[in-house]
Amino acid sequence: MDIIQAAKQARAAAIQLAAIDGATKNQALQAISEALLENVERIKAANAIDLKNSEEQGLEAPLMKRLKFAEEKLQDVVDGIKSLIGLEEPVGKVQMQTELDEGLILTRIACPIGVIGVIFESRPDALVQISTLGLKSGNAVLLKGGSEAKETNRILFEIIREASVKAGIPEGWIVLLESREDVNQILGMDQYIDLLIPRGSNAFVSYIMKNTNIPVMGHADGICHVYVDKTADIELAVEVVTDSKTQSVAVCNALETLLVHKDIASAFLPKLKKSLEAKGVAIRGCERTQKLIEVQAATEEDWKTEYLDYILSIKIVDDLEEAINHINTYGSGHTDCIVTDNQESAEKFMMLVDSGNVFHNVSTRFSDGFRYGFGAEVGISTSKLHARGPVGLEGLLIYKYRLCGHGQVVNDYATRKKSFTHKRLI
Amino acid sequence: MDIIQAAKQARAAAIQLAAIDGATKNQALQAISEALLENVERIKAANAIDLKNSEEQGLEAPLMKRLKFAEEKLQDVVDGIKSLIGLEEPVGKVQMQTELDEGLILTRIACPIGVIGVIFESRPDALVQISTLGLKSGNAVLLKGGSEAKETNRILFEIIREASVKAGIPEGWIVLLESREDVNQILGMDQYIDLLIPRGSNAFVSYIMKNTNIPVMGHADGICHVYVDKTADIELAVEVVTDSKTQSVAVCNALETLLVHKDIASAFLPKLKKSLEAKGVAIRGCERTQKLIEVQAATEEDWKTEYLDYILSIKIVDDLEEAINHINTYGSGHTDCIVTDNQESAEKFMMLVDSGNVFHNVSTRFSDGFRYGFGAEVGISTSKLHARGPVGLEGLLIYKYRLCGHGQVVNDYATRKKSFTHKRLI
Repeated sequence: MDIIQAAKQARAAAIQLAAIDGATKNQALQAISEALLENVERIKAANAIDLKNSEEQGLEAPLMKRLKFAEEKLQDVVDGIKSLIGLEEPVGKVQMQTELDEGLILTRIACPIGVIGVIFESRPDALVQISTLGLKSGNAVLLKGGSEAKETNRILFEIIREASVKAGIPEGWIVLLESREDVNQILGMDQYIDLLIPRGSNAFVSYIMKNTNIPVMGHADGICHVYVDKTADIELAVEVVTDSKTQSVAVCNALETLLVHKDIASAFLPKLKKSLEAKGVAIRGCERTQKLIEVQAATEEDWKTEYLDYILSIKIVDDLEEAINHINTYGSGHTDCIVTDNQESAEKFMMLVDSGNVFHNVSTRFSDGFRYGFGAEVGISTSKLHARGPVGLEGLLIYKYRLCGHGQVVNDYATRKKSFTHKRLI
Repeated sequence: MDIIQAAKQARAAAIQLAAIDGATKNQALQAISEALLENVERIKAANAIDLKNSEEQGLEAPLMKRLKFAEEKLQDVVDGIKSLIGLEEPVGKVQMQTELDEGLILTRIACPIGVIGVIFESRPDALVQISTLGLKSGNAVLLKGGSEAKETNRILFEIIREASVKAGIPEGWIVLLESREDVNQILGMDQYIDLLIPRGSNAFVSYIMKNTNIPVMGHADGICHVYVDKTADIELAVEVVTDSKTQSVAVCNALETLLVHKDIASAFLPKLKKSLEAKGVAIRGCERTQKLIEVQAATEEDWKTEYLDYILSIKIVDDLEEAINHINTYGSGHTDCIVTDNQESAEKFMMLVDSGNVFHNVSTRFSDGFRYGFGAEVGISTSKLHARGPVGLEGLLIYKYRLCGHGQVVNDYATRKKSFTHKRLI
């Protein structure tokens, strides 16, 4: 079947899937999780082939790690499906209801977006996660995985497709594309695909964004900041900064640049340096920082860099305003935190910093769908439309307006024979 | 000032504007409406120059009509500003609040999108409408008007800028661009502009969508349908179809294609024909339609056409499913209506038709922000992300997550020393 044909079928399935009740979708999710567990040996065997081929082709170690799909990762995705089943049915939820006039009722209800295209690199767990999220939210999914995970993706796809269709989900709702040329075809399919979710490196996501007219949900960068204000509790600041930088370094919500108020820098920085160096963090500092602690020099380039590594850049600022300006200039709108005992400064910071997540006195690492209690995560969006910050199921939904009446015509209102009541019901 | 400089200033102003309280914004709106009324003679004089120039250049009559900005239109925009002032303050509204753990509170609050670029053709009232909507929602606006309305736009812009800045709105929040070359520069400014709203013809909106990476809110087409089911009340159907087609024809929510169930066609179509011909509507029908009433032939091309004129195409279908498929194939996802006495058919239609507005037994012309009670309208969106259907102030807002604590670090949760409560507060 060619890709256009598959996309057309996904579009048709999406229409049907939008009308499938929550119980059927949950049964399908249950069937998928059981089938995954039953087929663990087949999945491992397929994954072993991918790992062997990739090793022969010299795939880098971090990618090899992401490619590996052992019992542990399988248990994680099965747990994820269980939590999805437990979530409230999202489709059909009434968001607002207004009586426009007697017997003329407007209702806004949540509905799926339609066909979601997902393009992901090596991680096969992403295939399971995104297709089950799509199913719960009533969307058809068109998946394009990395060629290095070809065998694993193929078996995971087959298991999900078979179990879900047997449970009553319309045939064609899930499509797996395999060849590299498919990516460019997908990018041009704005007629069939409503939303693209690229998962992978920064460069990869940026490439997708620049080469398609389809709306894209993805984050391009996570240059996160902590600003330590002059009235910060120093012990607390050391803990928050250390956790933000080191709890996990290769992630988008890790701290990259620290801003410190000039009045607290001499008391704070030596203590911070000790804590960070114990964790193996290399520090780069602005000129003023270098006068207080012995560190490498930071350049303009550092303020724009997402290290994803045990490196931190530090800049001393004159005041809160300079910190806010720095973040709004060099940040990526992801997650930024102020450490301060001054409530007014905290309010000002959270109001004026133009980021999806603005924190006060807590680690930037909290910026995550699971920690936020969303149950499942599509990704963390740094775009400013539709969905921002950690995106749960809600990001895969839109709404439609239903208007029900008994023959009302606009002419009666235009000629003032009748008038609107606009009474909010829900 | 060059355009990049202006956009940078708008970006800086947007940050400040996001933090301006509702009372100040309402005072500014009040000041704008007073200044517009005080300067009515200057506005009329400027508009007279535009009209004269455009007439000399042979501007078409409909465009001349849209260009004219007399007392009546001024009163309309002033009324619009008054209703904006009356609306609840949208910025800072708490959308949800969760206790992640004791003393660790996550709050999602509404905030402006940032810098909105608006590109509009001849209508100067669009300038006032969109800039006051931007102000109320805390967004900076970058406006590019048509050259035919140059003088009118310039004076309206000056009045709005002066009155708002005097009332405490940050300088630079509103920018007017005038030259045609500016459009292409705007399309490339994804670094500074968060959202583009093109207002104008279909071709114009499509051009914008195809030539920018900035998210666009706009509708490309309004091919609206009414489906008359076999159990429809015939009198009611005639009224709904006539109003949908003729109450105003050059608008996106007007009916373009009528679908009729085969069992009701012979009783219904002759009555409909009489009603429509009394209003001067030319009918084009499928083969089966032509056997029942004397009309021109409709071709495949008709199903794809937005006439915006006194023309209606009619197709007879075998059943509800065929009607739904026709709409999902040829429609534009704008507004589609079923006329039926069968509640089950109505539910099925509204569930399976993939449009922003799905109606039962009412005219398609109700699909409109003012009629929906939104107070003000940005436009009607046929996109499926962010905002769909008539878009009010809400479409100019996004949200940010605020997380407040007292030194919490993720490491404590990762090592299971602490655990999340995820208690929903709001």
